[in-house]
Amino acid sequence: MALAMGREALNEFLGRSFPQIAGQVRVETVDEDLLTARLVVDDRHLRPGGTVSGPSMFALADVAIYLAILARIGEVALAVTTNASVDFMRKPEAGRDLLAECRILKLGRLLAVGEVLIRAQGGQDPVARCSMTYAIPPKR
Amino acid sequence: MALAMGREALNEFLGRSFPQIAGQVRVETVDEDLLTARLVVDDRHLRPGGTVSGPSMFALADVAIYLAILARIGEVALAVTTNASVDFMRKPEAGRDLLAECRILKLGRLLAVGEVLIRAQGGQDPVARCSMTYAIPPKR
Amino acid sequence: MALAMGREALNEFLGRSFPQIAGQVRVETVDEDLLTARLVVDDRHLRPGGTVSGPSMFALADVAIYLAILARIGEVALAVTTNASVDFMRKPEAGRDLLAECRILKLGRLLAVGEVLIRAQGGQDPVARCSMTYAIPPKR
Amino acid sequence: MALAMGREALNEFLGRSFPQIAGQVRVETVDEDLLTARLVVDDRHLRPGGTVSGPSMFALADVAIYLAILARIGEVALAVTTNASVDFMRKPEAGRDLLAECRILKLGRLLAVGEVLIRAQGGQDPVARCSMTYAIPPKR
Repeated sequence: MALAMGREALNEFLGRSFPQIAGQVRVETVDEDLLTARLVVDDRHLRPGGTVSGPSMFALADVAIYLAILARIGEVALAVTTNASVDFMRKPEAGRDLLAECRILKLGRLLAVGEVLIRAQGGQDPVARCSMTYAIPPKR
Repeated sequence: MALAMGREALNEFLGRSFPQIAGQVRVETVDEDLLTARLVVDDRHLRPGGTVSGPSMFALADVAIYLAILARIGEVALAVTTNASVDFMRKPEAGRDLLAECRILKLGRLLAVGEVLIRAQGGQDPVARCSMTYAIPPKR
Repeated sequence: MALAMGREALNEFLGRSFPQIAGQVRVETVDEDLLTARLVVDDRHLRPGGTVSGPSMFALADVAIYLAILARIGEVALAVTTNASVDFMRKPEAGRDLLAECRILKLGRLLAVGEVLIRAQGGQDPVARCSMTYAIPPKR
Repeated sequence: MALAMGREALNEFLGRSFPQIAGQVRVETVDEDLLTARLVVDDRHLRPGGTVSGPSMFALADVAIYLAILARIGEVALAVTTNASVDFMRKPEAGRDLLAECRILKLGRLLAVGEVLIRAQGGQDPVARCSMTYAIPPKR
């Protein structure tokens, strides 16, 4: 399956459509199997103790899966998350960016399912796992 | 079960320990059965089209369940979310605060489970449903 | 919203379409807000120690939500579960039937979301909580 | 990490402790990274249309993750599932066994998290994805 959007097109879309998070998240690599995205961690993402907050990890997973879907079907700005499940497994070390690896498990006509493993940069063990379902608007 | 912390104590704790969200979320009511919290919606929470973003609703549910646990067991700043599942069911109307109703379904020695229904102010149908598990540190 | 199917019609449908579980699960009550279903516990549902197994509780929740959807939209035998999340919170006591309380939180054109609380008969605290999404076939 | 139990020990444990499903599920392979388990599909697992039921897939995922944990920590018959999330993505073709690939993402002192992809034998695309959390009894 050829990609409809590559790394630069996805980052440009992110900057244009989601200015609030565009400076915080960027796509690092994308191919037919895998999209990787980085959360550039700063004070806004931290909780007491210096660890990255759960909602920040949720936001990273959400945008990574959204962009991985767009990479395959092109700009569909109205796809919406209908369901998410997250396991927070370890506390990420302070002072490190987070890297999300995203795979699309299903790309149906109406529903897409993706999953994400999040690691702290330089770390081996995943800090969080997330799967989400997106509803895709009928006409595309 | 008598409450360990009331509304004012919870809001004071929120302001002290979570300054990044303290201006955005506040506890409205709390008793033995139910905690309600409000997300004061502003531009930071919005997505294209004026709807509140998924991560903003996740953050509201997360803090509501955390505070509902603290209301029962007192300040345990190190309780951590281990698992979350969310159903996003309707788009909240733009320009309205969100209200979260939180109930604690289990308060064990090590794990607590809470669930939240989120509605837009003045709306009947829930816009999102969320359940989360928190791990409670051994000594309390 | 008037119901499309009442208790007897739902139990008759269950016996006809799902003979494998028809003897184990039955609808006790149904109205616009709430459907209650009973799992008649026997040896097939038990794990070592005499507790009801997780898959048996999953099956109870699945059929309860399915029937609560049919109660509203009529026989749609091809509706399928697309997503489920379950919290197992307490071990049900041995030798008691399980009762599922099911509410439909969303009934959209394509997707329906329901949630279930499961209690052991005579018990107060819920033993499990479950939410599921069903995809509804386009033409109905 | 050396395994505490290999394939034969796991299948022997299954037959001894879970006689109700022992004839239906068996471990095919196990190593440090991956456990694969097979559901030998028969009429008990089928829904109208000949597809394998959701609860049967849930049961397969549940036992696969449980056994993958035991493979690492040895017989702990009282580990219990506390949480599960499942995405049902495609209907498995009738008349084929299901194969579950299970990986343990976290093996903590108190909580373990595993995930499973389920495929129909001979199929490429996953039919379901599941993640579960197990609570491990304190003394082991």
